[in-house]
Amino acid sequence: MFNQLAIIGIGLIGGSVARAARQRGLAKRIVAVGREVDLANLQLARQLNVVDAYHYDVKDAVVAADCVVIATPVASVESVLRMLQPYWNVDAVYTDVCSTKESVICAAETVFGQIPGNFIPAHPIAGAECSGVAAGTADLFENRRLIITPVSTTDLQAQAKITRFWEALGSTVSTMESVHHDTVLAATSHFPHVLAFALVNLLGCQDENAEIFKYAAGGFKDFSRIASSDPAMWRDICMANKQEIIHLIHQFQAELSAITEMLEQDQRQRLFDTFAYANQARQRFLDQSEQ
Amino acid sequence: MFNQLAIIGIGLIGGSVARAARQRGLAKRIVAVGREVDLANLQLARQLNVVDAYHYDVKDAVVAADCVVIATPVASVESVLRMLQPYWNVDAVYTDVCSTKESVICAAETVFGQIPGNFIPAHPIAGAECSGVAAGTADLFENRRLIITPVSTTDLQAQAKITRFWEALGSTVSTMESVHHDTVLAATSHFPHVLAFALVNLLGCQDENAEIFKYAAGGFKDFSRIASSDPAMWRDICMANKQEIIHLIHQFQAELSAITEMLEQDQRQRLFDTFAYANQARQRFLDQSEQ
Repeated sequence: MFNQLAIIGIGLIGGSVARAARQRGLAKRIVAVGREVDLANLQLARQLNVVDAYHYDVKDAVVAADCVVIATPVASVESVLRMLQPYWNVDAVYTDVCSTKESVICAAETVFGQIPGNFIPAHPIAGAECSGVAAGTADLFENRRLIITPVSTTDLQAQAKITRFWEALGSTVSTMESVHHDTVLAATSHFPHVLAFALVNLLGCQDENAEIFKYAAGGFKDFSRIASSDPAMWRDICMANKQEIIHLIHQFQAELSAITEMLEQDQRQRLFDTFAYANQARQRFLDQSEQ
Repeated sequence: MFNQLAIIGIGLIGGSVARAARQRGLAKRIVAVGREVDLANLQLARQLNVVDAYHYDVKDAVVAADCVVIATPVASVESVLRMLQPYWNVDAVYTDVCSTKESVICAAETVFGQIPGNFIPAHPIAGAECSGVAAGTADLFENRRLIITPVSTTDLQAQAKITRFWEALGSTVSTMESVHHDTVLAATSHFPHVLAFALVNLLGCQDENAEIFKYAAGGFKDFSRIASSDPAMWRDICMANKQEIIHLIHQFQAELSAITEMLEQDQRQRLFDTFAYANQARQRFLDQSEQ
């Protein structure tokens, strides 16, 4: 499919893109770009044969590349695009993996004036609470959804090529407006992460005095799993999608106030209805995710 | 260990007590008490040989029993104790499995004036989001913590006997003040359930218009798992421990307001510190739960 696949940032997601592309024979050569401070991770990527070479300078990786995947944290996309700009190749295709899409489009507009037609923002809905190239797997995208958020100036051929690439990695590709993407992902991913971090933060303080974690069961383990995610990455995602998240926080606080009222006023039926609706809604989610 | 074990309420927990006691040979005979509306479940318990017999009238089950386990929902403990009162046997031992302990002690005081010395309130920290006798397993209590909350009038011999019983079912038994139990469990179990129900309730409404569940990933599945728990059971638990839960809701709303402020004011370091503390606290929880 490609002669040279360049991956900027070879962590969990970038590393998995490389592994999956390698396994499925999608690129003759795969190269990574990373920073000197991440030398150990870059060396590991080479040792594991996840990539054929690594570079500190984007130029060395991208001049011969016909596909470039930006797999760095959300907050560094603008600076990455700025580094890529002098070597931007109209014959190549570009994509990214960021969890927020408005911020990526905004970064591209800041750097290029308007988002280049051959840059197709993408978000693979896959991941784990671990990080680094060692945590990557060749099947991370298999049977997972991936959302691309093209804009009005997007080149349709480039879009088709990037869609085929992500599909070849195993993803089911959907197309969505970037604003809608950020609303949906705030609800199902970003805000739940905020809740999990906030809860474990609150309980962590109490645990230091009262040993509460000692008596937590499996339900708590599952519920708090996403609080083990990388704090820097999630700070960046939350900052990048702050309006949606703040809106959900307000809605959720109102929801909690309603539950407080039900408890205070012994509104048993109303509390049952709230819990029962949630129970049924989760069943709808499960039924859907099994399709 | 016992001649006749009587289990009032033969659902997930009661059924698992019966299965585990049967497997480990802790009672010569095991009988269940249930209501006529639960006939199908009672018949199933008999068919599966989880119990030797079932009765609608507690009298038929408890007069010959030397151990009685109350495994009904939290809200019905008082009425169960009232039914047991005429046949209360000072030579038998009594225990329960409720998730709140102050409410059970309060129910016993209401019925008996003071909690009988041979009734040892207990809470096995085990369970699942499913219910009914069919969902029970003989190993549900294995390597799980169980908290007993004796009071000043508790008979020490009865306490020792109930402790040995729960240990024989596989539990690691801790002793705790009932008030402290309710504080700890509100934090690690009851309040997380409220959060999960509240979140899935909020998102469920939004999903009806915007198909958000379609794009939810594994993190959301784990995070929302406890929202699939039985709504009636959790309404009762929340009502029974409402003061602790309301207190946590207030603390959590303050936590969310602090995060809102960090987002609004671009306090990147403070947001990172919050998430990083949570990340480390969860690691402490994991390290502990592996011990």
